[in-house]
Amino acid sequence: MSNENPEHSEAGVYRVKGQSFNRDTNYIEDRILDEPGAEWPVEAGRYRLVVARACPWAHRTTIVRRLLGLEDAISMGICGPTHDKLSWTFDLDPDGLDPVLQIPRIRDAYLKRFPDYPRGITVPAIVDVPSGGVVTNNFPQITLDFSTQWTRFHRDGAPDLYPEALRDEMEEVMRPIYTEVNNGVYRCGFAGDQDAYDSAYDRLFAQLDVLEDRLQGQRYLMGDHITEADIRLFTTLVRFDPVYHGHFKANRSKLSEMPALWGYARDLFQTPGFGDTVDFVQIKQHYYIVHTDINPTQIVPKGPDLRNWLTKHGREELGGSPFGDGTPPGPVAKGEEVTEGNGVPVAA
Amino acid sequence: MSNENPEHSEAGVYRVKGQSFNRDTNYIEDRILDEPGAEWPVEAGRYRLVVARACPWAHRTTIVRRLLGLEDAISMGICGPTHDKLSWTFDLDPDGLDPVLQIPRIRDAYLKRFPDYPRGITVPAIVDVPSGGVVTNNFPQITLDFSTQWTRFHRDGAPDLYPEALRDEMEEVMRPIYTEVNNGVYRCGFAGDQDAYDSAYDRLFAQLDVLEDRLQGQRYLMGDHITEADIRLFTTLVRFDPVYHGHFKANRSKLSEMPALWGYARDLFQTPGFGDTVDFVQIKQHYYIVHTDINPTQIVPKGPDLRNWLTKHGREELGGSPFGDGTPPGPVAKGEEVTEGNGVPVAA
Repeated sequence: MSNENPEHSEAGVYRVKGQSFNRDTNYIEDRILDEPGAEWPVEAGRYRLVVARACPWAHRTTIVRRLLGLEDAISMGICGPTHDKLSWTFDLDPDGLDPVLQIPRIRDAYLKRFPDYPRGITVPAIVDVPSGGVVTNNFPQITLDFSTQWTRFHRDGAPDLYPEALRDEMEEVMRPIYTEVNNGVYRCGFAGDQDAYDSAYDRLFAQLDVLEDRLQGQRYLMGDHITEADIRLFTTLVRFDPVYHGHFKANRSKLSEMPALWGYARDLFQTPGFGDTVDFVQIKQHYYIVHTDINPTQIVPKGPDLRNWLTKHGREELGGSPFGDGTPPGPVAKGEEVTEGNGVPVAA
Repeated sequence: MSNENPEHSEAGVYRVKGQSFNRDTNYIEDRILDEPGAEWPVEAGRYRLVVARACPWAHRTTIVRRLLGLEDAISMGICGPTHDKLSWTFDLDPDGLDPVLQIPRIRDAYLKRFPDYPRGITVPAIVDVPSGGVVTNNFPQITLDFSTQWTRFHRDGAPDLYPEALRDEMEEVMRPIYTEVNNGVYRCGFAGDQDAYDSAYDRLFAQLDVLEDRLQGQRYLMGDHITEADIRLFTTLVRFDPVYHGHFKANRSKLSEMPALWGYARDLFQTPGFGDTVDFVQIKQHYYIVHTDINPTQIVPKGPDLRNWLTKHGREELGGSPFGDGTPPGPVAKGEEVTEGNGVPVAA
């Protein structure tokens, strides 16, 4: 859900001098439910998920949708990596229009729902195709609802990413992943002064150390199988060295210098549904071009060398099975592939 | 010799949009010579070397002066890491005045020599104490003259940093170290557009790869002993991970990811005369606070963790002896120590 600090209307301005970064977490909290009489009922073909490859919050939804096999039930529109002054656009599409919604900006779908929509125009957003309005942009709920409400449309062999028996523990694990890591990197980058930055840096790396410890003896965050918690951590880790390390000054060390986290991140990256949803080119373009208040030159670094994502990680030795009783997803849906030119690392 | 792009008079502006970075290399080229009738004769106690710990070009002079034992012959004034609008100041000194020259800014010594001095106010500069004017700021010549003109004042056991038999080969080695590496990192950071940056990045890492190869089989750049060439490379390498990697986007990899260069840099760092002249705090403050056109927030990163500079490098296995027939320098001169609070890494 970028625009990351939506209360600031001026394009390119994300930090407030002298203040710590505070994320606006007021979303459209409607839910799509598999219940009789639901205002927004689960229904194949009715909704369109709008994402941007660059955005870590949207990235969660592209991974979960693919792992669960929801591509046919929920179509996907993809915004380009940069913004115009009205936020995310469909500039990658022919004529700059989403082919289903026929709008140039996701903002149009927000205004269709609420003509005076006052908050940030963010992705991911789920749009009701018949009415053209946004149903929800409440990203932490969207992926959980993919797991719990859309079960009728899950593929055969879809993993259980949100097992009932683990939910309490998952909340405990996912809370600091959100506050200290997912949002923690932004708190570093958008710190309004040196003190706010210093404190954000300490919080971030303290939590990464906790996770490094946790992952030394087990393959995934919740044990032997991939869950929603891993997806939430992965989307920050995959952006760490290409963006957060330099652009957000989260630079105590690179991810590649934290052995358990680095092995874990590569293990996931090399698992179907993870690496094949990562567009490193769009990720770097987004941050370095959009945040002009911290990178006024808008120059996008060529580095780092990303071939190391394909190196052996050795995490199989910890046992476990990524999809539990399930199976890996098949090939990426046609038209949704990330191509080599879009930053897929190639073996050395 | 920062101010790095002296033709730009506006404080904080170092890059020119749409252009590659071009260093103004017009210096005051007077020399201090050990020759009868010299305009500026070698004379102990007459000259003051003015440096800033932050500046890589000045850093060369502090290393060479210490390795050769010239501390008593040539005194040293130290500017603080940041600038006021008139460039380098003696803000670290009591009352903000250099205790010998009694001026608040090195600029005053430039104007004493040339009242209309039109070019960049740079360090290192050598000041003639009796007249108060700058003799030279021609940094590549200053260190060579320390080696060749000040021999009468070298300490017992001073190494030969510029051996006659090697000078032709040294020129060949040092030329690309200057153009591609020392200046190459600035070409990345001050690139005026994406193309200029991309090309600067390629040039830099192509040359680092050449040096990585060269240092795989030999301990120092010219073979078994430390020379001027090593000093020139070291001052860039020691700033690489703390500054150039992030601030200048020289980020294909960290220095610590290039095994021969990293072992070589640590070997030098742990040699008397090198690490004990490095002030990581001032280095980071300088770049991140002064270059407001590329870091408008002026926030200084806390990272990277620098304790790795003290780890075992294993380069002794390549043989060689750092000071040849000479000996290591003794303790740092009183008053010139870099203290723990100024960024000296402490073992884990």
